[in-house]
Amino acid sequence: MKNYQKYQRGYFMPPCESNRWVKKEYIDKAPVWCSVDLRDGNQALIIPMSLEEKLEFFDLLVKVGFKEIEVGFPAASDTEYEFLRALIEQDRIPDDVTVQVLTQARPHIIEKTFAALEGCKSAVVHLYNSTSLAQREQVFKKPMAEIKALAVEGAEMLRDFAEKTPGNFRFEYSPESFTGTEVEFALDVCNAVIDIWKPTAERPVIINLPATVEMSLPHVYASQIEYISDRLHCRGNVQVSLHPHNDRGTGVADAELGLLAGADRIEGTLFGNGERTGNVDIITLAMNMYCHGVDPGLDFSDMPSIQEVYERVTRMHVYERQPYAGALVFAAFSGSHQDAIAKGMHYREDHDPEHWNVPYLPIDPSDVGRMYEADVIRINSQSGKGGIGYLLEQQFGIDMPPKMREDFGYLIKGISDHEHRELQPKEIYEVFCREYVNVLEPCRVDSVKFTERGGMFAEVGLKVNGVSHPATAVGTGRLDAVSNAIKDSTGIHYTLVNYTEHAMTKGSTSDAMAYVGIINGSGKIVWGAGRHNDIITASVNALVSAINRRDRVE
Amino acid sequence: MKNYQKYQRGYFMPPCESNRWVKKEYIDKAPVWCSVDLRDGNQALIIPMSLEEKLEFFDLLVKVGFKEIEVGFPAASDTEYEFLRALIEQDRIPDDVTVQVLTQARPHIIEKTFAALEGCKSAVVHLYNSTSLAQREQVFKKPMAEIKALAVEGAEMLRDFAEKTPGNFRFEYSPESFTGTEVEFALDVCNAVIDIWKPTAERPVIINLPATVEMSLPHVYASQIEYISDRLHCRGNVQVSLHPHNDRGTGVADAELGLLAGADRIEGTLFGNGERTGNVDIITLAMNMYCHGVDPGLDFSDMPSIQEVYERVTRMHVYERQPYAGALVFAAFSGSHQDAIAKGMHYREDHDPEHWNVPYLPIDPSDVGRMYEADVIRINSQSGKGGIGYLLEQQFGIDMPPKMREDFGYLIKGISDHEHRELQPKEIYEVFCREYVNVLEPCRVDSVKFTERGGMFAEVGLKVNGVSHPATAVGTGRLDAVSNAIKDSTGIHYTLVNYTEHAMTKGSTSDAMAYVGIINGSGKIVWGAGRHNDIITASVNALVSAINRRDRVE
Repeated sequence: MKNYQKYQRGYFMPPCESNRWVKKEYIDKAPVWCSVDLRDGNQALIIPMSLEEKLEFFDLLVKVGFKEIEVGFPAASDTEYEFLRALIEQDRIPDDVTVQVLTQARPHIIEKTFAALEGCKSAVVHLYNSTSLAQREQVFKKPMAEIKALAVEGAEMLRDFAEKTPGNFRFEYSPESFTGTEVEFALDVCNAVIDIWKPTAERPVIINLPATVEMSLPHVYASQIEYISDRLHCRGNVQVSLHPHNDRGTGVADAELGLLAGADRIEGTLFGNGERTGNVDIITLAMNMYCHGVDPGLDFSDMPSIQEVYERVTRMHVYERQPYAGALVFAAFSGSHQDAIAKGMHYREDHDPEHWNVPYLPIDPSDVGRMYEADVIRINSQSGKGGIGYLLEQQFGIDMPPKMREDFGYLIKGISDHEHRELQPKEIYEVFCREYVNVLEPCRVDSVKFTERGGMFAEVGLKVNGVSHPATAVGTGRLDAVSNAIKDSTGIHYTLVNYTEHAMTKGSTSDAMAYVGIINGSGKIVWGAGRHNDIITASVNALVSAINRRDRVE
Repeated sequence: MKNYQKYQRGYFMPPCESNRWVKKEYIDKAPVWCSVDLRDGNQALIIPMSLEEKLEFFDLLVKVGFKEIEVGFPAASDTEYEFLRALIEQDRIPDDVTVQVLTQARPHIIEKTFAALEGCKSAVVHLYNSTSLAQREQVFKKPMAEIKALAVEGAEMLRDFAEKTPGNFRFEYSPESFTGTEVEFALDVCNAVIDIWKPTAERPVIINLPATVEMSLPHVYASQIEYISDRLHCRGNVQVSLHPHNDRGTGVADAELGLLAGADRIEGTLFGNGERTGNVDIITLAMNMYCHGVDPGLDFSDMPSIQEVYERVTRMHVYERQPYAGALVFAAFSGSHQDAIAKGMHYREDHDPEHWNVPYLPIDPSDVGRMYEADVIRINSQSGKGGIGYLLEQQFGIDMPPKMREDFGYLIKGISDHEHRELQPKEIYEVFCREYVNVLEPCRVDSVKFTERGGMFAEVGLKVNGVSHPATAVGTGRLDAVSNAIKDSTGIHYTLVNYTEHAMTKGSTSDAMAYVGIINGSGKIVWGAGRHNDIITASVNALVSAINRRDRVE
């Protein structure tokens, strides 16, 4: 690409090294979560949410467990004003939930914001102004001092309005476009605002440092956060909040490394909705903690319902590969992955059912309301014997011998490859039944009578193409005797090499399933299966099925 | 969520601190890129690609500029075998492109792999085996020594086969499931393999450290990479390769921090396709470098075509918020963002057209084949005067006075809010024309004659509801004279407060556009516009339009 020279790195490094965070390994405590779905998220939609849709989304956020929810910019539009009024007047805000409203540092906007909050028990009033070099030069055409003055005046107005308005108000300040702001200037403005608001333990102040546009690698953002976090006034009564976007695809990393660097709070959205590439996805952040054994304090155990509401009201689609939520994120099509998952699931059952450590599955799909059956082992031409066999075992109670799994695996892969599509579990089961089970043409055995006479003696009611061929023989056991009788009577050559059987445990059946492998005239192994509520009949049917299939193998 | 206690962190820290990488700020040189779209990517598709689709994708990867392309696991399936044979036999591999094939450490698989490579000028043969604690325990049920022996024996077999097969072969080794492997064990196995392969400057060895499943924060992965990179034998002739997946949403961060930590090479896919949450997205990585002013060595200047081929052959959809590529990633719906973008674009034209530093647009959309017109300023009920005005200016050459932009902005937001949908630029233009331009009922002026008589004297051919009201008056200028004549003749009260005009520069027109603002009887400002190839007629029409609209404002 030719034009790369037209870009420079537009962020600023902190004036001294701020990398203590790198020594921390993981996030051991959930931050304060603040949803901005109804503001950042909403303003990035092709069709913004209606009032009713916003109310439904708000209820969902409460149900998930958010205690802080930004509900909009009530002074900016009638719709947002009315939404906040509806929340308050319909008494929809639980006592332990705080709504947050955005405002610019202009008197009539602040006035309208407080008017919109009338009757609200508690709220965060969130003041912002752009501080970046680019916006100072290009948009506001003002020097640093005037930009700082704008923040200070806004902070004073907020303080004054809050004093004369009934209600419990906390304040938040964002140096918007922080990632394009000189770090020391951002710190200076934040401290000036803190000095006006005078935070206390009862009324802490939130300082939000947004990656309005992601501009650097995530460790640079973390260093910026650490530098500022170390130097904020009244730090003990200040919550440092992060608000990452995802322009460089590293919004989650920004949030995580930023938390290690000292942040206390995250603003983000469900499924990473938001301007352009989106806000940071709070689901991913929370579930990342979850699968490190840390309680995220939010509940995503019914992800499918959350997704349904989200997709309906935002008219967005959750991407198939969205972590923890996408349609394909638990899917294993490839044979080697399926095999490892199948073995891992068995190992877990046998050794450590309390813990989860299954290869290729970072979390147990059932923890987020997803199903093993539909979501994990999925069968196409890339799949292998392990997965196909496991699927039949788990869903239909069919536990074939390992070599037979291989035979069946090739058969199924071939069908998927030929038909160029994924096969559903039920189809695979049907292929299995049609291909192996009770294949009773041209040979069939209608009855067998066994007697013990120095070995097992069998009288076999054999039919070939409907014509009776009664046959008798002795064998080392029942199946061997039947096999010898069939060989003698028909002259078919084969060697019986494998026999296994089990009860069918799935469903309300008392059937037995038997599997027989024979070596045919060309030296190839051929499989058959028999199913019957009588185990003897099942095993004879398995043998007969193998015999009838003996020419199907090349 | 209740079940978080069932998870433990399944990764391993390096035995000593390895955080030198954190002092590096950005990636100043493109790594070696290796596409695994045709292997990892393909095996994660619901419907894997056909031979023809793979060939088309291969050609696309070559066109984008990949010099290393993994083409599959030829010993694993006939389809992958045939694909490699087609590439070789149809001579589709350019001389500067190396294909890469995957193989397990088993003799018959290695033999078939080399058979598949017959006639290939140069190839990377990529050996892997799983080394993680979980897979050793659950899948292979083997101790460390046997897992290491498997790698060593595989490496020896590769070496021996390569010696007796014509062609230029390089080797790659992956301790698969590296992120779940004890770091020192992974290092030990890699060094054992290197000792067998004896890399040289002419024939370097690739050691690939995959985040097969993402298990840690990205800085932990970087520390693991740095630790191993520092301790590999023959490091000067070894390329350290990364292969991140995205289970925790931090695949891009893994790759970026891993490159700072010493890696030389990245395996990934276009648009982050791949198992589960996907492989790392090479487009994002490359474009992240690009917008730091670093040449990525790959060409995504025609992203829409790349996306078209990708979506067609993989049957996947590029997510709307996918960095640099999604349908919405350049979109600004919100008024304040639109305003800043509009000002930034003007600033750039006037001050620094060589560089790009526009707020809220990390890159110039035209660098990836996207269009300002369709992709950036998009209008719905969240939008503002700045964006709406800018859009009419850029696309239709309509440069309204600022106060008129505000009036029109409210009008358009109202329509979008009411109709609950996005408005297209052409619709907005049509609303503008219908609402403001040449509104010539009930008043119209069919002719004007001006004479200079101690002030401008106008004889105005005025009609009201089709009835002639010839009128005359004197004014300080032409428009003032016409205005006075209309006032005198009709008795309509208003004050003319704003007049501007410009030539229409878009399209092949020589029209002029004039804008007039009047204060109506209720003290509100009302706007009209006139368009005509005669500037006098245009301005008179603007005035008449404003007069005719004087009751439309509440």
